[in-house]
Amino acid sequence: MAQKGGLVFLSIILILNCLAQVNNTSNLMPVPADLNANANIVRITNQFRVSIIGPANSRIYAEGSRFVRRLSNKTGIFLDKQGYITQKDSNIAAQLLLRVGRPGRLQLGEDESYSIETGKSQVTVSANTDLGAIHALETLLQLVITDADGYYFPGVSIHDNPRFAWRGLLLDVALHFMPVDVVKRTLDGMAAVKMNVLHLHLCNDQGFRVESKIFPRLQQVASDGLYYTQEEIRGIVKYAAQRGIRVVPEFVVPAHTTAILTAYPEFESVERDYHLQRYFGVFDPVMDPTNEKLYPFLEKLFGEMSALFPDQYFHIGGDENTGKDWNNTPHIKAFMKAHGMKSAADLQTYFNKRLLPIITKCGKTMIGWDEIFQPGLPKEVVIESWRGNESFYGSVKKGHPSVLAYGYYIDLIQPASYHYLNDPIPDSVILTADEKKLVLGGEATMWSEMVTHVTVDSRIWPRTAAIAERLWSPKTVNKVDDMYRRLDIMSLQLESLGLRHNSYKLPLMRQLANGWDTKALEVLVSVLEPLKIYERNEGDTMYTVFSPFTKLADVATPDQEVPRIFNKQVDEFLSKPSPGLEKEISQKLILWKENDAQFKLLLNNSPVLLEAASLSENLSSLAEAGLEAIQYIHDHKKAGSEWLQEKLAVANKAKQQGGRCEIQVVDAIQKLIQRAGD
Amino acid sequence: MAQKGGLVFLSIILILNCLAQVNNTSNLMPVPADLNANANIVRITNQFRVSIIGPANSRIYAEGSRFVRRLSNKTGIFLDKQGYITQKDSNIAAQLLLRVGRPGRLQLGEDESYSIETGKSQVTVSANTDLGAIHALETLLQLVITDADGYYFPGVSIHDNPRFAWRGLLLDVALHFMPVDVVKRTLDGMAAVKMNVLHLHLCNDQGFRVESKIFPRLQQVASDGLYYTQEEIRGIVKYAAQRGIRVVPEFVVPAHTTAILTAYPEFESVERDYHLQRYFGVFDPVMDPTNEKLYPFLEKLFGEMSALFPDQYFHIGGDENTGKDWNNTPHIKAFMKAHGMKSAADLQTYFNKRLLPIITKCGKTMIGWDEIFQPGLPKEVVIESWRGNESFYGSVKKGHPSVLAYGYYIDLIQPASYHYLNDPIPDSVILTADEKKLVLGGEATMWSEMVTHVTVDSRIWPRTAAIAERLWSPKTVNKVDDMYRRLDIMSLQLESLGLRHNSYKLPLMRQLANGWDTKALEVLVSVLEPLKIYERNEGDTMYTVFSPFTKLADVATPDQEVPRIFNKQVDEFLSKPSPGLEKEISQKLILWKENDAQFKLLLNNSPVLLEAASLSENLSSLAEAGLEAIQYIHDHKKAGSEWLQEKLAVANKAKQQGGRCEIQVVDAIQKLIQRAGD
Repeated sequence: MAQKGGLVFLSIILILNCLAQVNNTSNLMPVPADLNANANIVRITNQFRVSIIGPANSRIYAEGSRFVRRLSNKTGIFLDKQGYITQKDSNIAAQLLLRVGRPGRLQLGEDESYSIETGKSQVTVSANTDLGAIHALETLLQLVITDADGYYFPGVSIHDNPRFAWRGLLLDVALHFMPVDVVKRTLDGMAAVKMNVLHLHLCNDQGFRVESKIFPRLQQVASDGLYYTQEEIRGIVKYAAQRGIRVVPEFVVPAHTTAILTAYPEFESVERDYHLQRYFGVFDPVMDPTNEKLYPFLEKLFGEMSALFPDQYFHIGGDENTGKDWNNTPHIKAFMKAHGMKSAADLQTYFNKRLLPIITKCGKTMIGWDEIFQPGLPKEVVIESWRGNESFYGSVKKGHPSVLAYGYYIDLIQPASYHYLNDPIPDSVILTADEKKLVLGGEATMWSEMVTHVTVDSRIWPRTAAIAERLWSPKTVNKVDDMYRRLDIMSLQLESLGLRHNSYKLPLMRQLANGWDTKALEVLVSVLEPLKIYERNEGDTMYTVFSPFTKLADVATPDQEVPRIFNKQVDEFLSKPSPGLEKEISQKLILWKENDAQFKLLLNNSPVLLEAASLSENLSSLAEAGLEAIQYIHDHKKAGSEWLQEKLAVANKAKQQGGRCEIQVVDAIQKLIQRAGD
Repeated sequence: MAQKGGLVFLSIILILNCLAQVNNTSNLMPVPADLNANANIVRITNQFRVSIIGPANSRIYAEGSRFVRRLSNKTGIFLDKQGYITQKDSNIAAQLLLRVGRPGRLQLGEDESYSIETGKSQVTVSANTDLGAIHALETLLQLVITDADGYYFPGVSIHDNPRFAWRGLLLDVALHFMPVDVVKRTLDGMAAVKMNVLHLHLCNDQGFRVESKIFPRLQQVASDGLYYTQEEIRGIVKYAAQRGIRVVPEFVVPAHTTAILTAYPEFESVERDYHLQRYFGVFDPVMDPTNEKLYPFLEKLFGEMSALFPDQYFHIGGDENTGKDWNNTPHIKAFMKAHGMKSAADLQTYFNKRLLPIITKCGKTMIGWDEIFQPGLPKEVVIESWRGNESFYGSVKKGHPSVLAYGYYIDLIQPASYHYLNDPIPDSVILTADEKKLVLGGEATMWSEMVTHVTVDSRIWPRTAAIAERLWSPKTVNKVDDMYRRLDIMSLQLESLGLRHNSYKLPLMRQLANGWDTKALEVLVSVLEPLKIYERNEGDTMYTVFSPFTKLADVATPDQEVPRIFNKQVDEFLSKPSPGLEKEISQKLILWKENDAQFKLLLNNSPVLLEAASLSENLSSLAEAGLEAIQYIHDHKKAGSEWLQEKLAVANKAKQQGGRCEIQVVDAIQKLIQRAGD
């Protein structure tokens, strides 16, 4: 395999993919609530037309038109006689007939159900709202299948609706700004996997990212010029709405406000020279809740901002207040004492209580992170939980509608399987029926400390599709292997929308390799993942907003295919050795062993890769040890203890990071070594 | 090679690239007017800093900051202690010192010269204007080189300035709309190769692409929603200005105005039901120059539009008026007769004369295509020539400043060499010194009939870099082989700016192959080019704006590397056979011969590729014939005439198009076959 394959790390996917082509009805992601196959097929030819029956509805006409273009682009069939679908496209004999009820309202709990029926010569979609119909179109694009005669829709009867009403993605555009086109293609991806909430994290210590006409210093002084104009915000909201996606803005207060205080230091707690924060982490600057001028400021600012976002919910952050600036300021300490407050948390509760009527006056419902969940918080306030199950079910049991973020932190480079198995209502938690209703859903959170607009797609996709399925599909849809099989297919579907989680790699590798030949780098990267959780940015001091995110750890992606499959093969081999598995494992080990010599040639021309030199050497030594182990196992011989100790030391050394990455096949090869010594 | 290489078509480039790494001073593109190497080097470490000396100048501070980020991203060196450069960054001991004179004016003929001197511990840039300094920064990024100790700037003394003042790229956003991010990354590419005019073709029969507040039906009715808001236009102009690039808008009148007439049919010549044109070509709709209400309309519209574009020049198109609608309309015929006009051309001259004071009133200088060059046209009007040398030098000799587009039509899929050798002042043309001054420069023209935002980069880049060099570098810099050597390197530099001329291919191939394995498709595509000139869209009837541009001809790029080098190798081999060449040629032929079996496997799963089946088969047969020919030549035997006829027929068959593409190695293999029969 390795000798033949170009993009080595894709070879395995291919095998899975071939299997998967057997029947596209089993490839859907998220899996529908109810699907039955039938024997009908509807062919897609250049005569294929879409009709839409129901009340006039510009959104479904536009989405229907987009569907036709995507179908045409995917199949290469010229469907260009149907340009933009209008009310006139109502021929009930059309190959695809959409029967669409009322326009859906972009609000929590709206009907998103749909059904698809393949008949003898027609596919019929029925949906109570256009939001359901839009989901149906995404399902249909996934269903397209081929045979010798061309493309067709297979026979299905699908009745589908989501398990949770809040299926979100948090996109942090504050720590690293994301240009409008990134946001838009992210929305395309979300729509493809039936997510319906884009949570935009719009300000933090590093910048304030929305134009304010009332407080223009926010963008002038506190954004580095990296912000959305109000027109752009409206464009994003419109683009999202067109895809059935709500946009929930987050303006975090009172902490994480270095940017706001840089523009308007009069709201500071501690007097200092405020500048935009260039590092990432938790910092002391915080607004002064005892300053009565703060509230009119927030009322005006949030009034202006909330008017840009039609959604019912307005996120006020509220997280990670160190309290130090409050505790170190005499007049604030005095205020706390005078009001019987014992801690910064009490003062923040006071602040939140002052904030709530402001948000209410804006016509919005407040949502915030766990930290705002304090006694006395009105029950309509939504809690978004990032701190764990205890916190999450705590707020649910106190009657707060809650959104689960914990376990969906896609910035932490954990595998899709981890997120996939993170059920918002796990069996281990006992909730009443009413409490279950308060579990609104969840949000994948794309914090942007360690990503730029170039790499962000690879941190969101395809893993977020697994989270989307968790939030949409029945709880019983939870087989990890099948999820990965479908995720590989979904990855290509997402790519064809313009997402760059795959395609960003080779350009970045060519830059790293300082030339066109990236093969040795590809082989190495295919077994690497960036350091997980918060390890990469050790002590929060290694990276700033200006750091180069164009290095090994940026081209290495989470949840790598090659180690995942290799590790599985080793486990299978160790439980039941077979010549086939032995050969496959050995081929990979040979590839890795021999790769270092090729990799060293790259180093001559590319000092930036020097940080990967030890990884490449370690991988080579490790693979060599693995090959020797395989030989012992093959020969049914027991390795000597000296060999064993030596090779275990090799494995141990191979656990060291390099370029903020780790080799992902150490444990598996260590198992082979151990077995050789048993 | 083929057995090992992943991206087969890149293998050759690699070889060239390795050679090229010897000395980056010989890799520059465009080649500077004057360069001398010296023995100094200045190392790039995390202590590297940039200082800027001269009058306060926000543009060069911003470009200097962008330079630091790019240098950091390229080398992986953390230069993040220098965030945004300001006036405070004036330490004259900095590793890079920019001595910058006055802010350059964005106008034709402004001083763009610069010099670079590598000293013992410092690189010094000197420029009379920041525009020159910006060019110097691009040169410096190209100069970065490596050795065992890391990255450094080599020793150079460069004195550089452009040969022509107008170095443009026409981007047609009317026929297929191009989103803002495409325009911006195109500007990044232009700046990298020192181009300084973006000519935006903003309306045509297919759409009007700028928001008008005075005539909103233009975007509401005549754009399909695909237009730039005025804020976006201002953003594009600002982004361009930041890079020293002027933006010249084109609003074509009186023909190619179906879109305007769809919005405002009252200016029609012939009464008909106007709709946006979905096909491409030359159409009859034209404004009625005899309608006195037309001129106040144009005055208001152009007044509004010209205010958005600060550049001195305003392009009014003027091309491709069939005249039919005028000749078929009694009142227009009567007007022509009454005014002694003999032809539509006369009436258009009348129209232009009416238009000129309108443009002048806007404070602009008029520019238009050849067709507006008629007797009586004031001499300040600039002519852009697309019809050939005769037309171009005709206008020059009549005293008009002129811009050459003819020969730079990059939409026509011709090789870079063709454009590169198209000198605006060729030896064959005799011009006086004053006439030479009227040759302002040239423009690569990216007409967008056959491209979308996904493919457009691959039609612009890297070939446009060769045109940029033609317009910047001394006339004597004209060696095609060396241009191609440097173009391969430049292609990567352009890619690292975010341009997608390389990276769009694999995603599109994965979509075409309906899976991850694209190897057989890559091999085939590497020898294909789309049909050239206007052949692809036969009779202007095959494609509409809604057609899928996601097919074989879209993933095949102009000026393919593999055939160019193969053809050269065959020529060398035929003039002087050698075992090395024979082996290289044979390896490729074997690869192509055997590829068809692999390609057929793809077809099982991907009907969209059926249009390529004959190409793959023909390539296989052709390669087999080539191998037989090589064997005859190797054996010093003469093939029989029957064999010869049979194989020439194979070659002939291989000239047939498939999927609107042609095999580019037919002629070379035919030569081998011929030689075998000699």
